Amino acid sequence: MTAHKASPQERLQQAMRASDAEAIRACVSQLHPVDLAEICRDEMPYAALALLSFLGAAARAATFTELPPERQRRLAELMTEEELGDLLESLAPGARADLFRQVEAGRRQGLLRYLTAEEQRELERLASYPEGTAGALMTPQFVAVPETATVQEVLEVLQQHSDEAETIYQVYALDESGQLVGTISLRKLILARPSAPLAGYLTRDVLTVEVAAPQEGVAEMISRYDLLALPVVEADGRLVGIVTYDDAMTVAEEEATEDMHKGMSIGRLEGSVRTARPFELYRKRVGWLVLLVFANIFAGAGIAHFEATIEAYIALVFFLPLLVDSSGNAGAQAATLMVRGMATGEVRRSDWARLLGREVAVALALGLTMALCILGIGTLRAGPEIASVVAISMVLVVLMGSLIGMLLPLGLERLGLDPATASAPLVTSLADIVGVVLYFALATAMLGLPA
Amino acid sequence: MTAHKASPQERLQQAMRASDAEAIRACVSQLHPVDLAEICRDEMPYAALALLSFLGAAARAATFTELPPERQRRLAELMTEEELGDLLESLAPGARADLFRQVEAGRRQGLLRYLTAEEQRELERLASYPEGTAGALMTPQFVAVPETATVQEVLEVLQQHSDEAETIYQVYALDESGQLVGTISLRKLILARPSAPLAGYLTRDVLTVEVAAPQEGVAEMISRYDLLALPVVEADGRLVGIVTYDDAMTVAEEEATEDMHKGMSIGRLEGSVRTARPFELYRKRVGWLVLLVFANIFAGAGIAHFEATIEAYIALVFFLPLLVDSSGNAGAQAATLMVRGMATGEVRRSDWARLLGREVAVALALGLTMALCILGIGTLRAGPEIASVVAISMVLVVLMGSLIGMLLPLGLERLGLDPATASAPLVTSLADIVGVVLYFALATAMLGLPA
Repeated sequence: MTAHKASPQERLQQAMRASDAEAIRACVSQLHPVDLAEICRDEMPYAALALLSFLGAAARAATFTELPPERQRRLAELMTEEELGDLLESLAPGARADLFRQVEAGRRQGLLRYLTAEEQRELERLASYPEGTAGALMTPQFVAVPETATVQEVLEVLQQHSDEAETIYQVYALDESGQLVGTISLRKLILARPSAPLAGYLTRDVLTVEVAAPQEGVAEMISRYDLLALPVVEADGRLVGIVTYDDAMTVAEEEATEDMHKGMSIGRLEGSVRTARPFELYRKRVGWLVLLVFANIFAGAGIAHFEATIEAYIALVFFLPLLVDSSGNAGAQAATLMVRGMATGEVRRSDWARLLGREVAVALALGLTMALCILGIGTLRAGPEIASVVAISMVLVVLMGSLIGMLLPLGLERLGLDPATASAPLVTSLADIVGVVLYFALATAMLGLPA
Repeated sequence: MTAHKASPQERLQQAMRASDAEAIRACVSQLHPVDLAEICRDEMPYAALALLSFLGAAARAATFTELPPERQRRLAELMTEEELGDLLESLAPGARADLFRQVEAGRRQGLLRYLTAEEQRELERLASYPEGTAGALMTPQFVAVPETATVQEVLEVLQQHSDEAETIYQVYALDESGQLVGTISLRKLILARPSAPLAGYLTRDVLTVEVAAPQEGVAEMISRYDLLALPVVEADGRLVGIVTYDDAMTVAEEEATEDMHKGMSIGRLEGSVRTARPFELYRKRVGWLVLLVFANIFAGAGIAHFEATIEAYIALVFFLPLLVDSSGNAGAQAATLMVRGMATGEVRRSDWARLLGREVAVALALGLTMALCILGIGTLRAGPEIASVVAISMVLVVLMGSLIGMLLPLGLERLGLDPATASAPLVTSLADIVGVVLYFALATAMLGLPA
């Protein structure tokens, strides 16, 4: 489906390697800013800068806007003040604030002189909203009209602002203090009688978010109610921006990536996994791994308690990785089902009793199936007594693992913590600590202590 | 942010429990179809049916449209033919086809008589597109005009079709054979000279997908290029529908859920995890778990080979769960980073050499950190010889696990398989099999066989 798109991209990359300016210019004109941005993201920074220099101001701004923040920062570092100032000037206000956030504090003052006094004020206001909030995600380029306007007047405003507005399909009506009092879609506007007052056509019960709202909640609301744009207001109700559906899609994709990484106890990466530096990856991965080393030392201490049993029945050790993996895998499955269900709103805390009953049934069925698989081979390899211990342990550890995986996210949420902390590594390690002790205790009880 | 929304929903649920018809009616009128659908999804089927009966035809259709397919099927089973026929009639064509796909084949013929002959033909055509394709996702309610129209004529068509069209913000121009020749946005239309021919304003290089294209590709394209709607064409180029951004968002969320489940070797669930029946969950979870039991039996056989070493140094067993968990956790992290990076297009197969070098560096750093953690306690507990074996093994198993996790998704893609098959359980088990053998082999080599 993208096969017909891949070709001009590849040709551009070849032309860049060959430093063939004419070929670069020819390819560049055929590519969408999104595709150009992908190349700027993947190439070395100097190559990306060179590519940007082949674009006109508008295309350069559009391409730069599509770059991930950490790549914007890297390229900004390499630009002269004049290059950066020109770029800043040609960006839309929202993208301008995003770039300004990435520039070192020391360079900011110098850059401001490329902007008009009004642009400077707007930029400083927008850049002050912290990353990850509705304020940082929004664009100030919406179409607002006084609630006293007529339909015809609104249509004229739309025609005038069509170029710079992010969307003209949703119009916002304000009272004299700038408070949002209602909205109307262009769809309804073109059906309305031109001379009629706007007020009669307004939808007054409007969903809004405050500037400080976290961006994932904003994206969820847009997706849930199929909104084209969601208005963002200050605490006093003044409309200051809108978040559009396409930004919500980008946020949703980033959040899904973050959730998947969190499910493996990987911290939030600043940029793309492709360009992350080794030390950043190390730092984001090492935390829970080390914590779980210490947790696992408890499991080791538990085993030491059963030294005599192990010495008498060495074959028990052969089945240890099997049991450890099985309980961990079943537990990680249960945790993932819960954490994702809670993230999408399908599963709520009040469901816990019903879900617990179901998980017990499923886990027992899983454990029994796996126990049956091991019973035959186990008997052949280690005799019926040990095979029985392993099979019964299998049922118990799978049940344990599943219950830990299911209940831990609920418990964490209950405590006001993020349920996603119940990652596969954490659940696996907890399930293993319980499972290992259970296995050897059962063996000691069933096989008897050695004489 | 949704706090002000939660309250009417809770009041409705209370009114339903109390069978207070007046209170139900009052609450229902305040709720968005999305919120009503959530209640219909979460309540018992008969309660959901009762709730739907309180809604007018339009609200009932809007609410039903928002329900997940398996809940639609369940409710349809419980409806009389007349109820189902009335509902079918009031749904939009796309939603009608979605419901029709969920109805048992035996009931379909009887339902068709609630529709006009034209509606029947359209329904049969739409319902013939398999679930999961662009054809099943699209709506046929787009605004199409002949390419020979004038701007003023197009604006009149838009006003006429404003009610039933899914979007009027994108207009599609067709030639006389129904082939798509260009598009224009309402934004550009309202700026165009009314008497001018449309042809001069058309964008002719239009992205399209074919009806048979998989829905995840459609969603990706809409998200990538920030489209409001993507036209869907038959193989011969005739325009038959559009997919809008809100459906793309829903698909993207479902795909993310499926990817997360796949990362734990959980098969694709038909419906919501909340309403999945125990047997379905068992079936979707058991496959790889059982397969990995057999894989793990190899690890057991490997350990049996080192029986003499284990007998001589029982303390080696104390550290087995620690090593097994650590290599599995590091491997699952590496796999998740790769699989998600490949799914979002950040990581490509051609990057493998650079990524391999980075992963070796990161894994060595992780392994060394974890080895240092264990060295002190290990010496205290089992003496310096065994502690050294454990520490060196830790570095090696974390490296092994990470490399398996990183390379397996790339290898799978190379073979034309889904990289997401490199799930946490698979990577964990593979890493453990290698790790366990490595640990005991190293111990045998370093500690010497017992006399």
